[in-house]
This record gives sequence, structure tokens and C-alpha cells, in this order.
Amino acid sequence: MPPGSPSLNAYGYPLLIKHLLTKSNIASVCQEIVSGTDMRLSYADLGKRVCQLANSLKTEGILEGMRVGVMDWDTHRYLECFFAIPMMGATLFTINIRLSPAQVLYTINHSQSDLIIVHQDFMTLIDDIKSGFNRDIIILTIGNGEGYERWIGGASDSFDFPDFDENQTATLFYTTGTTGKPKGVSYSHRQLVLHTLGLIAGFGAWPGNAGFHRGDVYMPLTPLFHVHGWGFPYAVTMLGLRQVYPGRYDPATILGLIAAEGVTFSHCVPTVLSMVLDHPNCTQINLSKWKVIIGGAALPRGLQDRAAATGISLHAAYGMSETCPFLTVANLSSDDQEVRAQTGFPGPLVDLRVVTQDMKDVPHDGKTTGEVVARAPWLTQGYLDNAEASDELWDGGYLHTGDVGYIRENGSLQITDRLKDVIKTGGEWISSLALENIASSCSGVEEVAAIGLPHAKWGERPVLVAQAAKDSNPNLVRLNMMEEIQSRVDAGEISKWAVPDEIIFVDCLPKTSVGKLDKKLMRKDILTRSDLKS
Amino acid sequence: MPPGSPSLNAYGYPLLIKHLLTKSNIASVCQEIVSGTDMRLSYADLGKRVCQLANSLKTEGILEGMRVGVMDWDTHRYLECFFAIPMMGATLFTINIRLSPAQVLYTINHSQSDLIIVHQDFMTLIDDIKSGFNRDIIILTIGNGEGYERWIGGASDSFDFPDFDENQTATLFYTTGTTGKPKGVSYSHRQLVLHTLGLIAGFGAWPGNAGFHRGDVYMPLTPLFHVHGWGFPYAVTMLGLRQVYPGRYDPATILGLIAAEGVTFSHCVPTVLSMVLDHPNCTQINLSKWKVIIGGAALPRGLQDRAAATGISLHAAYGMSETCPFLTVANLSSDDQEVRAQTGFPGPLVDLRVVTQDMKDVPHDGKTTGEVVARAPWLTQGYLDNAEASDELWDGGYLHTGDVGYIRENGSLQITDRLKDVIKTGGEWISSLALENIASSCSGVEEVAAIGLPHAKWGERPVLVAQAAKDSNPNLVRLNMMEEIQSRVDAGEISKWAVPDEIIFVDCLPKTSVGKLDKKLMRKDILTRSDLKS
Repeated sequence: MPPGSPSLNAYGYPLLIKHLLTKSNIASVCQEIVSGTDMRLSYADLGKRVCQLANSLKTEGILEGMRVGVMDWDTHRYLECFFAIPMMGATLFTINIRLSPAQVLYTINHSQSDLIIVHQDFMTLIDDIKSGFNRDIIILTIGNGEGYERWIGGASDSFDFPDFDENQTATLFYTTGTTGKPKGVSYSHRQLVLHTLGLIAGFGAWPGNAGFHRGDVYMPLTPLFHVHGWGFPYAVTMLGLRQVYPGRYDPATILGLIAAEGVTFSHCVPTVLSMVLDHPNCTQINLSKWKVIIGGAALPRGLQDRAAATGISLHAAYGMSETCPFLTVANLSSDDQEVRAQTGFPGPLVDLRVVTQDMKDVPHDGKTTGEVVARAPWLTQGYLDNAEASDELWDGGYLHTGDVGYIRENGSLQITDRLKDVIKTGGEWISSLALENIASSCSGVEEVAAIGLPHAKWGERPVLVAQAAKDSNPNLVRLNMMEEIQSRVDAGEISKWAVPDEIIFVDCLPKTSVGKLDKKLMRKDILTRSDLKS
Repeated sequence: MPPGSPSLNAYGYPLLIKHLLTKSNIASVCQEIVSGTDMRLSYADLGKRVCQLANSLKTEGILEGMRVGVMDWDTHRYLECFFAIPMMGATLFTINIRLSPAQVLYTINHSQSDLIIVHQDFMTLIDDIKSGFNRDIIILTIGNGEGYERWIGGASDSFDFPDFDENQTATLFYTTGTTGKPKGVSYSHRQLVLHTLGLIAGFGAWPGNAGFHRGDVYMPLTPLFHVHGWGFPYAVTMLGLRQVYPGRYDPATILGLIAAEGVTFSHCVPTVLSMVLDHPNCTQINLSKWKVIIGGAALPRGLQDRAAATGISLHAAYGMSETCPFLTVANLSSDDQEVRAQTGFPGPLVDLRVVTQDMKDVPHDGKTTGEVVARAPWLTQGYLDNAEASDELWDGGYLHTGDVGYIRENGSLQITDRLKDVIKTGGEWISSLALENIASSCSGVEEVAAIGLPHAKWGERPVLVAQAAKDSNPNLVRLNMMEEIQSRVDAGEISKWAVPDEIIFVDCLPKTSVGKLDKKLMRKDILTRSDLKS
């Protein structure tokens, strides 16, 4: 091939986060960003304040390649950190404020941060753990926000953000499992820019306006420390949307902001939506223009129906910390509640497969399950300083989600279980989630978990661990559950192998630090407490 | 910074054209692609046929790095070439069938192609020029399509498309100016993938459905050899839209396909839309669901009004051969015809500036003009083997569009003229386009061009070159034009410096090979024909 003649003057355009601001700086200068009930700024202000923050950090000694941690509620300050810190070439470390003090200490030490920006609400925590810091860390307390304003206020509002390799790390956060230490997940500038484009292309290219677009008013309800607010703040800033930041999540404030600022688009886990719907003010506010993307956990039908009754438009999406997170979104054009709750269609460039243990594709028949694996240009390439876990994550060249699901004939994915929770009995894979859904619908059941216990002949056999509702008779509840499960078997909905060998009642189901069912502990407890067995 | 631990198993995901097929292969396998009136295939077929084409090319000796030219109408075959050829690592050379035979020969020789795929309609042309080929070139005649089917029909429908550097050249075509040889413009896989995402994100992220989305039925009306059909075939294939290819452009066929296949989204230059609207069948077909993006030239108001009367939804977009082409699109949510015809808002990641000669930004006041320059991740990095033109294109690190315009306070761009056509008089920049718009609206004017002629005191002065309508009196026509122009000056619409010094009548305005006004020739003619002066 004869050589082309790229000009030495030509701009190669590395995919850097600073370029996400390029267009909104032209077309959205006057657009408003609202933070809490008392702060309003324009995109022009945002551009200047990002420079001021960068200059202030530079004054503190922050250079390219260093790491800066942030502990704050969801505010305009956090948004400014999303841009200024990576744009300087430093890494934004979004500290998970919901971890235990020991875990926060572990992640700060592991991150090798040089400076942390801490809202006063978290200073007690920091004061408690800072003696354990393994290096000198500058702690910038930003009071109730005024400290931040004073800090950046005096700095110059211009900063010449340099070009550098688009593969440079931009963000870092930690993910926690039920076992082991938190694992560091990081993303490069390139990955975040591509994720931003993928998110807009994936949510925008549907008939109707169920996704998000330039006419929407955005408010995050996924904490910004959680997978950078699922990447939405970058996307909506690039598009130049009006934005609203709710600060610390409080249902009354959230509802007030939706009403006062005309919020039309948010995203959250089911629990947060539940919290909003439970608030008495909810009935007094028109929510019929509010579109909410639900992720992080399956969308329970009950919650979906409650939301629908208020006029909220819900759709499910799917991803995880290791995937930046966007992998799939439900059919955004559908009015069918069942379709809206489906795991959905892969985003642009997402190479999504459901595979057997030897990485063969299962048929796309809407029933054959396997593990969900993926490639996309924005998946984390490995955990920070944890080669073993990284190799496991990418075994066979695809990122292993650890989720079990199937693909429908129309290409839509359905997650049915976590791989580690699936019950493998006699060659059949039983979805613990499906079993729990059936059992939890029975009267007298407060909460229930389906787990697999080792079995000499069948490999594993399903067992239910249940908490009966107050004043209910466990024996009757057990009968209810067994009858309901048997009826589903008779109807051909689930395999006969799914009928549990036992239903064990406990006072309270064990949970992990983030509130998920701790099935590992349940299995251990049951196997060691022989008194409970049969 | 401590090192991360990217796994060696991790897939780095180069931005390759093959990945555009990933998602549609999962979610749109059954979606239909219609070609002309007799060919229908599914996306599953497309995937297999792309492999068959690659295997057939491999059999002919095509390897990574070679160039393959295509001369065909807009068909499913061309779409298959869009994927198979770059996916093999070869370069797709889209031959401009509208060039003169000498220019076609020049571009084929310059491209160093190893094989050209030629529809029988172009074989006379090829037979005429092939003795001038500067190397051995395999000529694959595809008859009226059957030859192509026979050719690929026997090949295996699986092909292991390799990964390679995303900066590898994927496509090549030639752009012609009014002077000099055609210049080769090429794009890499990375650029085309990013352009695809940018196009979807830029057209999808508007309220309403004026852009394109998964529910649309797509038919290109920009020839696929022209800047790869403005990049839309890649975008709609990635999204999995139903597609319709019209073959050779014939208004009756186009109207028939719109009606029969329910086409809802197209793009074209004004001339093609005009041709469709002029056809008598036009009145018998419901066009109210047809969205059309107009580019390549300013959208004349008369055409816009005619289209609106039929119910067609028109919007303007802007770009050029060197920009892949997407730079801007008009406000897709607006119902205002004037707003719809505006050059519009920059796409995602497009860093668009209007600058003075020393590259300073002009104020965004909706009136101060300058040259439009741009950066985006999909701009050509230089012309093939033409370092001088490449350096000129990228002077100062921004791609120079050669267009003059201004930016409104809301960030929307308006092109007012070509830089080389703008008339610079006494420090004022007069838009030749504005002057032509006014003059052409006067009765008795068939066609008119505004040009600048050198002037000792003012640098340049405007002169109109006009063709009077048949049976009109040139003196009256001249009077009409001067009165109309003066009235616009009095109304403050244009500067008093815009009043032309002269109006010269000619029998016919000179045009370039692609039908544009040849102002360079006009200036030369007038300056050398002293008999015409005053």
C-alpha cells in the first residue's frame, strides 16, 4: 500500500475527557446546572470552574499521574471533579462512602492517593482512620461546600489542559464482593469517551423519547461514586442537558427538585426508587414526565407497578462495575411492562454472548441459559494490582459477568441468576432467582433465599431459607410454598428438579455489607448447624 | 502511578469496522435489507455474504493492505463491499462514476488498486481507459448483478476476519476541485467507527424522532461512492435498521420504493430531492412519513417549501469529503423552516470554530464571519501522496473547511459562503451567496453569480454575472436587480458595499465538471475580455 500523506499539522484527536466539553462549550454555554436548592451555574461557569479546580489542585502539588480521592454527595463539585482531575492527567478516585471504615482505609491506602477532597459529613470517618494512612495524604476539607468555593474561588479560570495518551487512566473506584478485599477498577480516557458515545447512541436510537436527549432535564440518583454515576454525567454534559444535582439523597428533597426543576430523566437502583415512592409527598407531585432507568438489580414487578401507577416511565438496563457499566438496555419504545423490565438489547459495539463452560454459544431460543460474557471498547482491562482476579475476569478473552441468562430470538438478553447462586442439580441449572420469585409471592413469607447444597448423587439440591412474616405459622407457610412451587412445575414453568428438598426457617436472612443476601454464609451456616438439617 | 494489572487475556477492542456488525448480528438477524425491486436479504444473510465476498476476493489474491475499487449503483452488493473489503484489512476504493473518463483513469492509477469490481453499465468506460492502467488490475465484471451472485455464491460463508491496528486505512475516494488533479481522501477503521457513533449520537439525541432510530426504514439517496454515502450505511447497519437500496437513481423507482417499502429516512443533495419532487408520480404517493437530511449544498427555500407542501420533513446538515463528513446538523426538533435550513449544531466531539486569518475566534454574535475550521476524531489526516495540500488543509492544527460563516449566540453555525468566493471589499466581507440569493429572486433572472473583481482602492468589488430568462429584456432585468439590492441595503439586511459595480449578462454561466458555478473561470474571462468591461 502506498503511504498516505498525513499532515504533520493534522490533529490526531486522542479520545480525552476534555473533548466531552468541546461541544457543550459552543452550543450550551447558557444552559443551567442546578446543585441542591441553592447553587446555579451555567455551562460557561462549569468550564471556568473546572479550570479553577485544576489550578487549585496544581497549587496543592497535584501533577499528571497522581491520584485524587473524592468523598462528597452528588453535587456540582463532584461534576467538576469528574472533569478537572482526569483532564489534568491525574486519576479521579471516587471513594465509596458506604463501605466500612476499615474498607475505606484499605481502598485509600491501596489507591496510593496523594490528596483527598472530603465533605465535612465524612470528616469524622476520616479522622478515625487517618492514622492508618500508609503515606502522606493531603486532606482538603470542603466544609459544607463553602470551603470548596473559597478554595477554588481565588484561582485562575483558565488552564491549558494538555493532550496525552488516550489510554491514560482517568478514574478509579473499588468494587466489593462477598469475600476478599475490595478490588480496584479503573478506566482510561478512551474508554470513558467511547462509553459516553455508546450510552448516547444506545439510549437515543429508539423511536419515541424514552431514552434521554437534549430536551431532557437530568438528575442522577445513582451516587456519583458508583461507577461514575453509571457514566451519565459525562453523556449529559457532552449533550449540554440541563442538570440537577440532589446532594445527599433525601426523598423530600428529591421530590422537591423533580417538581421545581422539571426533572425528566434519572437512573437508580430499585431501592432508591422505592424510597422515593414511599415518601408521603410523592402523591402530591406530578411524576408523569419522569423517565427512570433502573439498574444494579432486577426490577421487581411490584415496584414497577407502583411506579407505573404514578405515571413514571421505567425501563431496565444492565451492566456492572467492571463494564463502565453500560451493556444492555430494555426496548425503550415498548409500553409493555414485561418488556420494559427485560435485561434488554446490547448497546452499540457490545459483543454480548451467552456461553457454555467451554465458551460455546448457547442457542438464542429464549430458554437455554449459560454465562453472560462480553466485549466492548469500555470494559475494564483488569483489577488494580490483582493479576489473578484479572485473569479470571477475562478468561478466554471475554469479560465474565458472573451472571447467568439466556438470549431471546429477537436478540434481547434475560439475566436469570448470579452464576455462583445458580443451583446445579443433575445436569440442570435451576435459577435461584426464579425459585425465590415464586416462593416470595406466597402469603406469610417475609423474605426467602434459594441456595444449592452439596448432594452426593445430584451434585447440588435446592434448599429454601425463609423468614416467615410475623404472626404467621411456619408450617402453613411451608405448605403454601411447596404447593405453589409444585403448581409451577405442573404448569411446565420450572423443572421438577427445582422443587426444594427442604425449607428452613430462620429469624433473619444474613446479608452482606451492601445489603445483598449472603448465600455463601447461609450455605456455611446450614452445613455446620446439623441441628437444622432435616 | 502504581501500575494497574490489565490481564493478558483482556480484549483491548480495536475500533474496527467488523465490530459494527457485532450487535446487529445478535439483535437484528431477521431484519430485512431490500435491494432494488427484486432482492431481499436478512442481516443473517448479510453476515454470511460478507464472508463469501471476502473469500472470493481472497481467491483472487486480495490480501491485507491491497486496494479494491468498486463501480456500482447503490445496491446490497455495495453494502457488502463496505464491510468485507475493509474487514479483510484491504482498502475499499469507491470510484466516482461521475468523473470524466480521464479523471476515472487518473484516480484508478493513483489509487494503486489491485482489483476493481465493475457493474456492466460502466464496462464501456473501463474498456475505453484500461489501456492506460499503470499496473495489472484484475477487472471483475459483475454483469447486471448476476455475475456477482455467481462469483460469491460458491464461496464459504465463514471467514475469520482478523484484528489489526485500528488506524489501518479502510476507505479511499477522490475529491475534485475546480483546479488541479483529484485528491485522494482516506479514512481509517477507527475514524469510521467513531464517525458512526458520532452520527448516531448526534442525530439521535434530539426530542422527537426527526433523526433516525431503530424504527426507521432507511434508503440512501447520496451515492455510496460519495463519502461512503455520508457514513449512514455504517450507522444504520450497526443499529439494525431495515434498509432499502435504490440501485441507479431513477425518480419513479425511488418513489415506488418509498411507497412499497415504507421508507422513512433518507439523505441527499438538493438536486436529487428536486428530481424526485419533479416527477409526476410524486403527487400520488404519501410522503408525510419521509424524513430527509439535506447536505452537500445549501437548502434553497423554494425547494424546502415544495417539500414541506408534500409533507416531507427536511433538515439541513453540513460536512465535506474531508470530514467523513458529519460536522453539524440543524435543530432536528424544530418545526420552523428557517431553523431547519440552518447549518446547525456541531456533532459530539466536533470542535468547531469560526476564526480570523490568524486563527482567533470571532464572537458568537450571529453576524461576525470568519473561516470555519474544525477538529473531530474522524477528519481525514491528509490527502493521499499530496503533502502540500495536506499541510494547507491542516494549517494551524485545525482542518480548514474553506467555508465562511458565523456562529449564533445559541451555538448554531451558519455557512454564508465559500472562502474563495467571498468578496472582500474595503475591509468588509460580502457573501456572494447572499447577493446571489437576492438577485436570483428578481423576475427575468435565469441564473446569477456574484464574484469579486480586483479593485485598486477597495481590494475587490462585487460584480454580478447573470443569464437573463428567455424573452426578457436584460436592461429591465438589470434594473430589477439593482432596485432589489438597494432595497435590501436600505432595510439594513446587507452592507452598502454589497451593491455590485456592474451586472454583466452572458448566454450561459460556466460550470465545473460537477455542475458547480465556475467562478474562477468567470473572473478570468471577465478580466481578459476587456470588451465586456464598463
